[in-house]
Amino acid sequence: MATLWARRLSMAEFKAALAADAAAITDFLVPKLAVPQRGILGEAMAYAVQGGKMLRGFFVLETARLHGVSPDGAMHAAGAIECVHAYSLVHDDLPCMDDDDLRRGQPTVHRRWDEAIAVLAGDALQAQAFALIGTADLSDAVQAQLMVSLADRGGADGMVGGQVADIAAESAGGALTLDEITALQAGKTGALLIWSTMAGAVMAEADAAPLRRYGEAIGLAFQIADDVLDVEGDEAAVGKAVRKDDAAGKATFVSLLGLDGAKRRAAELVDEACDALNGYGDAAATLKDAARFVIERSH
Amino acid sequence: MATLWARRLSMAEFKAALAADAAAITDFLVPKLAVPQRGILGEAMAYAVQGGKMLRGFFVLETARLHGVSPDGAMHAAGAIECVHAYSLVHDDLPCMDDDDLRRGQPTVHRRWDEAIAVLAGDALQAQAFALIGTADLSDAVQAQLMVSLADRGGADGMVGGQVADIAAESAGGALTLDEITALQAGKTGALLIWSTMAGAVMAEADAAPLRRYGEAIGLAFQIADDVLDVEGDEAAVGKAVRKDDAAGKATFVSLLGLDGAKRRAAELVDEACDALNGYGDAAATLKDAARFVIERSH
Repeated sequence: MATLWARRLSMAEFKAALAADAAAITDFLVPKLAVPQRGILGEAMAYAVQGGKMLRGFFVLETARLHGVSPDGAMHAAGAIECVHAYSLVHDDLPCMDDDDLRRGQPTVHRRWDEAIAVLAGDALQAQAFALIGTADLSDAVQAQLMVSLADRGGADGMVGGQVADIAAESAGGALTLDEITALQAGKTGALLIWSTMAGAVMAEADAAPLRRYGEAIGLAFQIADDVLDVEGDEAAVGKAVRKDDAAGKATFVSLLGLDGAKRRAAELVDEACDALNGYGDAAATLKDAARFVIERSH
Repeated sequence: MATLWARRLSMAEFKAALAADAAAITDFLVPKLAVPQRGILGEAMAYAVQGGKMLRGFFVLETARLHGVSPDGAMHAAGAIECVHAYSLVHDDLPCMDDDDLRRGQPTVHRRWDEAIAVLAGDALQAQAFALIGTADLSDAVQAQLMVSLADRGGADGMVGGQVADIAAESAGGALTLDEITALQAGKTGALLIWSTMAGAVMAEADAAPLRRYGEAIGLAFQIADDVLDVEGDEAAVGKAVRKDDAAGKATFVSLLGLDGAKRRAAELVDEACDALNGYGDAAATLKDAARFVIERSH
């Protein structure tokens, strides 16, 4: 049964809402990062957070609105998760990792400055995330809860652990099972996404279980859609299924489920994500739209 | 006037006390880091925290004892500061930074594994520090206070900022003034040291000003003694004053104050550190001994 909701944004309206939140988060973050006495370190930190869609920050702000959380507290939490996301990208782009020269069409931090600045700007961005939460208009209990969950989801049992598992799987060249690839992606990309969707409920000290289910479902759907686009995007571009990941011997949701199976699974997960929010009624309409659009435009 | 105190440890007794705390912190940390499902990431994290003097953890445990803080809370905070210190060393040792093959006589993390693991193990150690504080037997208010001060002192305005300033000063090749080098060292090595000496009072929600002054004084004294040893150590070894830093055009406390002036300043700072603890009476005897011994054996 298809999920029904009161109001549906057009894709253009959703993009505008996402862009407005990203602009607000950027305006909030940049002066806090590019502090003059920090010199190039501050410049590199501010550079690293800019230019992305800020989907994680958007989820923090939207789920905070859903729970009537103070805008100041929500903005600090949104800034924090974007700092963690940005640090992970800066370190991922390093020559010893993915060795990327460009990110969002701009030189990566180690190309714009150097590797030492990229390592240190990433390190400082992680610290800044905790400093932001610690200065938010939120109770001590909520601050502590947000910080420890960010540490858990961003650390060895979450995002960083997923990155190491991904590197290990690639260098082993072995095909993963569906359970293994699901666990890997739950860490690598899911952990921070789930933190951001849960943030609104955590800040309001409300039940975060529905928003956790929502985040888990769209995190996985997002990754499946990514694999689908890797195949279909290439097909459109070069006229045949290139399947880069497949050629590299890398298991993907498409190689494991087939193209149609993967699309079906992503659609099911979007429905699961929306169903998880039914208790919120019409107030969750934008988040339900977000689930749908995030899958449709995952590249 | 020389500072007097009731009990004085011998150097051997002090070393034994330091080693006992380091062993306790290591026993606490290693199983929390080398979790089997983390694989080599956990191994690298545990490897990185081992083998050092754990001076920062010692200060946390000692100042916690001084304030009657719960041993569980103190141990979590001691483990946290050692995780941050360890991550900073792992990243400092990277080829793009100091490019060191050995640390404490063992291969550095990027030599034992590879650079990607070193970057990621460092990242995960920073996150783990916050996770440890967030699971300590401490109130929400104290947890939040410890986490935000750790983020501030470990980030762009503290340790990481000091590292960037150090790199900038070296590559500029210019001589720093005494104020500049003092500010640089206050960030690079002082910030975490001060956090560790203040931790006991912060955990007890007591006035942390005396322990801050103590930490500030020994942090600076430690660095001056380091510069003195760089000269005198080399003299003993090769029969002449090599002055590596000086030859590299790098301003040091010795180049700015002269050898005798630097020694005098370090001794004054040890007295200042001890005087700051006078309000604690005999209970602070071990910390006063520590100030003296840390300077004497700073290498």
